[in-house]
Amino acid sequence: MSVQVSIIMGSNSDFPIMKEACDMLDKFGVSYDVHVVSAHRTPDKMFEFAASAAEKGTKVIIAGAGGAAHLPGMTASITTLPVIGVPIKSRNSIDGWDSVLSILQMPGGIPVATVALDGAKNAGILAATMIGAFVPEIGQAIADYKEEMKAMVAEKEAALKASL
Amino acid sequence: MSVQVSIIMGSNSDFPIMKEACDMLDKFGVSYDVHVVSAHRTPDKMFEFAASAAEKGTKVIIAGAGGAAHLPGMTASITTLPVIGVPIKSRNSIDGWDSVLSILQMPGGIPVATVALDGAKNAGILAATMIGAFVPEIGQAIADYKEEMKAMVAEKEAALKASL
Amino acid sequence: MSVQVSIIMGSNSDFPIMKEACDMLDKFGVSYDVHVVSAHRTPDKMFEFAASAAEKGTKVIIAGAGGAAHLPGMTASITTLPVIGVPIKSRNSIDGWDSVLSILQMPGGIPVATVALDGAKNAGILAATMIGAFVPEIGQAIADYKEEMKAMVAEKEAALKASL
Amino acid sequence: MSVQVSIIMGSNSDFPIMKEACDMLDKFGVSYDVHVVSAHRTPDKMFEFAASAAEKGTKVIIAGAGGAAHLPGMTASITTLPVIGVPIKSRNSIDGWDSVLSILQMPGGIPVATVALDGAKNAGILAATMIGAFVPEIGQAIADYKEEMKAMVAEKEAALKASL
Amino acid sequence: MSVQVSIIMGSNSDFPIMKEACDMLDKFGVSYDVHVVSAHRTPDKMFEFAASAAEKGTKVIIAGAGGAAHLPGMTASITTLPVIGVPIKSRNSIDGWDSVLSILQMPGGIPVATVALDGAKNAGILAATMIGAFVPEIGQAIADYKEEMKAMVAEKEAALKASL
Amino acid sequence: MSVQVSIIMGSNSDFPIMKEACDMLDKFGVSYDVHVVSAHRTPDKMFEFAASAAEKGTKVIIAGAGGAAHLPGMTASITTLPVIGVPIKSRNSIDGWDSVLSILQMPGGIPVATVALDGAKNAGILAATMIGAFVPEIGQAIADYKEEMKAMVAEKEAALKASL
Amino acid sequence: MSVQVSIIMGSNSDFPIMKEACDMLDKFGVSYDVHVVSAHRTPDKMFEFAASAAEKGTKVIIAGAGGAAHLPGMTASITTLPVIGVPIKSRNSIDGWDSVLSILQMPGGIPVATVALDGAKNAGILAATMIGAFVPEIGQAIADYKEEMKAMVAEKEAALKASL
Amino acid sequence: MSVQVSIIMGSNSDFPIMKEACDMLDKFGVSYDVHVVSAHRTPDKMFEFAASAAEKGTKVIIAGAGGAAHLPGMTASITTLPVIGVPIKSRNSIDGWDSVLSILQMPGGIPVATVALDGAKNAGILAATMIGAFVPEIGQAIADYKEEMKAMVAEKEAALKASL
Repeated sequence: MSVQVSIIMGSNSDFPIMKEACDMLDKFGVSYDVHVVSAHRTPDKMFEFAASAAEKGTKVIIAGAGGAAHLPGMTASITTLPVIGVPIKSRNSIDGWDSVLSILQMPGGIPVATVALDGAKNAGILAATMIGAFVPEIGQAIADYKEEMKAMVAEKEAALKASL
Repeated sequence: MSVQVSIIMGSNSDFPIMKEACDMLDKFGVSYDVHVVSAHRTPDKMFEFAASAAEKGTKVIIAGAGGAAHLPGMTASITTLPVIGVPIKSRNSIDGWDSVLSILQMPGGIPVATVALDGAKNAGILAATMIGAFVPEIGQAIADYKEEMKAMVAEKEAALKASL
Repeated sequence: MSVQVSIIMGSNSDFPIMKEACDMLDKFGVSYDVHVVSAHRTPDKMFEFAASAAEKGTKVIIAGAGGAAHLPGMTASITTLPVIGVPIKSRNSIDGWDSVLSILQMPGGIPVATVALDGAKNAGILAATMIGAFVPEIGQAIADYKEEMKAMVAEKEAALKASL
Repeated sequence: MSVQVSIIMGSNSDFPIMKEACDMLDKFGVSYDVHVVSAHRTPDKMFEFAASAAEKGTKVIIAGAGGAAHLPGMTASITTLPVIGVPIKSRNSIDGWDSVLSILQMPGGIPVATVALDGAKNAGILAATMIGAFVPEIGQAIADYKEEMKAMVAEKEAALKASL
Repeated sequence: MSVQVSIIMGSNSDFPIMKEACDMLDKFGVSYDVHVVSAHRTPDKMFEFAASAAEKGTKVIIAGAGGAAHLPGMTASITTLPVIGVPIKSRNSIDGWDSVLSILQMPGGIPVATVALDGAKNAGILAATMIGAFVPEIGQAIADYKEEMKAMVAEKEAALKASL
Repeated sequence: MSVQVSIIMGSNSDFPIMKEACDMLDKFGVSYDVHVVSAHRTPDKMFEFAASAAEKGTKVIIAGAGGAAHLPGMTASITTLPVIGVPIKSRNSIDGWDSVLSILQMPGGIPVATVALDGAKNAGILAATMIGAFVPEIGQAIADYKEEMKAMVAEKEAALKASL
Repeated sequence: MSVQVSIIMGSNSDFPIMKEACDMLDKFGVSYDVHVVSAHRTPDKMFEFAASAAEKGTKVIIAGAGGAAHLPGMTASITTLPVIGVPIKSRNSIDGWDSVLSILQMPGGIPVATVALDGAKNAGILAATMIGAFVPEIGQAIADYKEEMKAMVAEKEAALKASL
Repeated sequence: MSVQVSIIMGSNSDFPIMKEACDMLDKFGVSYDVHVVSAHRTPDKMFEFAASAAEKGTKVIIAGAGGAAHLPGMTASITTLPVIGVPIKSRNSIDGWDSVLSILQMPGGIPVATVALDGAKNAGILAATMIGAFVPEIGQAIADYKEEMKAMVAEKEAALKASL
């Protein structure tokens, strides 16, 4: 059986950021795998990966990339699956604007579900919500997570008031 | 039975843009409804809408908003469903940057799947890909659409070469 | 009796910045309290807080938030009180532009009194001027503070000239 | 008896925008007057205006300005009253960024309550909320206005659904 | 024999801008052909085009694209030829920043020779300089063009002085 | 006899940057004095300073300021002398854009001669060129400085080539 | 005898903007001439112009340019005179940011006195203040102009009040 | 015999960045030399260098510059050779935007082949592709490099999977 989510990135140096997506998928019980695929350095591999993902049973692709970030958009041009793009603030980036805009501003016909700069954590959660809309246990896991976040805010308020 | 996608926007004046999402959902055979809900003018209505969407069977929410655009993010804070945000370039917008950033840059924990400025067409397609990953006919409709786009490019090239 | 100003923020990690507002309110003799309230993680709590502030006798709300900062605007959508928004340059922020624009560019009907990026000190002073317009002692305290600032400039000039 | 709000602007050519503030103050029953005062062309007049506003009984000053907009900040440097700044997108403006930043980014000690670009309507409402916190009838007028906005959204939704 | 330059663009609607490149190549006596190729709508066609260009004898590729513009960079990832990228300010573009940054900010290893926004004229001249460095007649044609530009400035000065 | 140039800044904390202007004036033999004057904290002092500078015989004013930087423009509104504005990248600045735009984008009628962000060195040289146009020794000192810069480039090239 | 100010621009198409500088110089009784000089199209002419301006007795150079605007900075690199740069928002400009930054952000050693985007009027006034610091009649003409501006504001206020 | 590529920069302090271009040219077997030439500090030297490059047999010029970066554009205005511009993020740069825009946004007639901010590595590769289009061994070296990059991605994927 295939994994539910495939996470791709241009280099293993992006993994410290992309790992936050893995952590959230682990938390919600979503299965996934991880690949290093570069739109610019391995265009053939990217094509093969994107062309075969849907038939393998994958439900969502998460693609992280920096600078003139073409990996999410090119993957989306080939697959029929939803692609979540994570703009990464790479070395030499112009404050992250380059990766944000080259992932977000896709032309009509080829959407990429873009999350915040370095927002891999939210990419993992977003993938889980897509699956959770169809798989009740995962939908419930997200609902539980929302309760956890509420409790955490209450704890933070208690900590703040204790410190005053 | 519920619709598969709910489309919300702050004002009927946003409908000319958001209609492009409807058109794509129609094309792919995805059912949807449309509501005017404002985060700032009808916060209660937004809460009720967002809190009840998942249990009604909706699979995806598309929210369009301009300026300091809080509707997509606030909806995402309440529902467990995936929320697609469409930044709209409203009157008095600072070139669209305000709506883009206030939808895209959501904090960790609450993702919004952001598409391009005024990118309602892509929001419709993206919603269809999310559903198409689980509903084969819709997945196939997207695959067909990709073939149509290819044919359209061939036609455009023929037109260009004929005009030279 | 209620406090005159309520200060809210999404996390206790924002307190080192928001404390500057407290310090100014202390200086001017304005009473206040502090809460951790998150628009995205505790939307219900935010609603209750905002809906009850005016009837408790609060005169001004100060709300600090970063990234796609919805707390000030959503609070303003519910309360009839003036809301001062403090854009905070959070981790992963795109140079602060996201918090500035998602607080400043509110749509017609729902104003937020926005101050500079990380400008909690000015938020405290601004709240005091609003109250000082009706409460003479506080108005006088602000007038005194302006004299202090003048004296401080004179001291700085003396220090500079002594150092040359 | 003095007016409750004074509205100043650098030129009568700014009045078509600033009039939206007047309209909101009229709606809420807040008294006001209007002056043409330029920080750069009539610095003396600006000083006299700002220095005398509080003692005349004014509660709030609204200042609109474009480009390198110094009128709101300079007025705030002299008066102890709250000053609301309206960035105006003037001719030759760099997309409005110049007026936004030169009003918003005031140094510590001298706040300006900044509203959205060309946001004079919100400046009027914000001034009313400041006064409404102390004057119950005006607070009630704002609460009524919020109900009106809700009703308007319901009407817009009806119109949209009728048009589908 | 192959053409010296291939010009590609995502749609025939880009041709009014890209035609300025053709005009300059005509002027310098450089041979070229024109294709509609879309990175996102016809990824296979783009791959074939890019993979075969060098062996056909083409010397330079000019690629025009707007929004999240991936055509120049993806072509450069496949070919060993120099690729000149023309950022086009498309409909829904955020002032052209998206196309500029997604063409310019290529990662290390895959350069694109980027010209100004809508700068197809300069793309044509730049391609000619690359060829002119090896083909003397074309180098001379560029030198002649520089003289023409000088003469044109002299004419403009005469016109201005005559008009004073 | 008066000094030729007056240098003003809002705080002695700006002096490490503004000192570069002093150094260049020293080098060119231009006399100057230095004052701490704040547009926002000491508006009266700024008025007196600006109103009296021309009659004291000063030829140029250099004003450094950060954030919503009003000191150069307000000084220019009062004096008939040329005012050079130095945008300073202060704490909490939005990457310096605030000080650049609030100094540069002055409305018609009140120019400020703006130099680069933190460009106090160039402010000193620019003041010297203004005086050097009328005072031959200073004009000559600038010509000599240009020769020095050429020699320095030659040294740098030698150093680079030696290091290869 | 030489003129006091030389105005240069890259094309006669810039004259409608640069004429505002002429108008102000006419008003203040400052003599000037006008030339079409292009840094990029006539580099030799620019060098000769810049190298000879000081010895001809010119006191100030005003240079207008758009896009990647090199004329002001290159002129400043050659002459010892003060150079005022006018950023012009040309066709294909990215909202004027390109001309502003390529004139303003000169490296240490070579200042350009930059005015606002399309701010030729202020360039004329600034040139007059530089000369007026040494030539009393011109200094007086500027003082008179400041009085005129005050009167104009008073008229505008009267017009506004009459219209209410 | 002349070198194939000349690399110029304004200061030896730029060499740590520009060295990446040298490294790539070394790798591809392209001959080059390096010069310190400043548009602003040594305009005469720049003119001589640019005017003589083509006749010496050089095929491509690479010019690195920061801030208001005029070296690439001015060199391109004089030579008939292709000029590659490397925007360098210098001290006091406004996040690199100044160097990017003053190199990229050249007016019609004078192209500069611009690469990413601090993208000297890509400048070296781009120069090699220009030469490789005419010199088969160099074209082959680039093809080999593309294979190396593919192998490197495979290694990185292996390393990532081993680390999980």
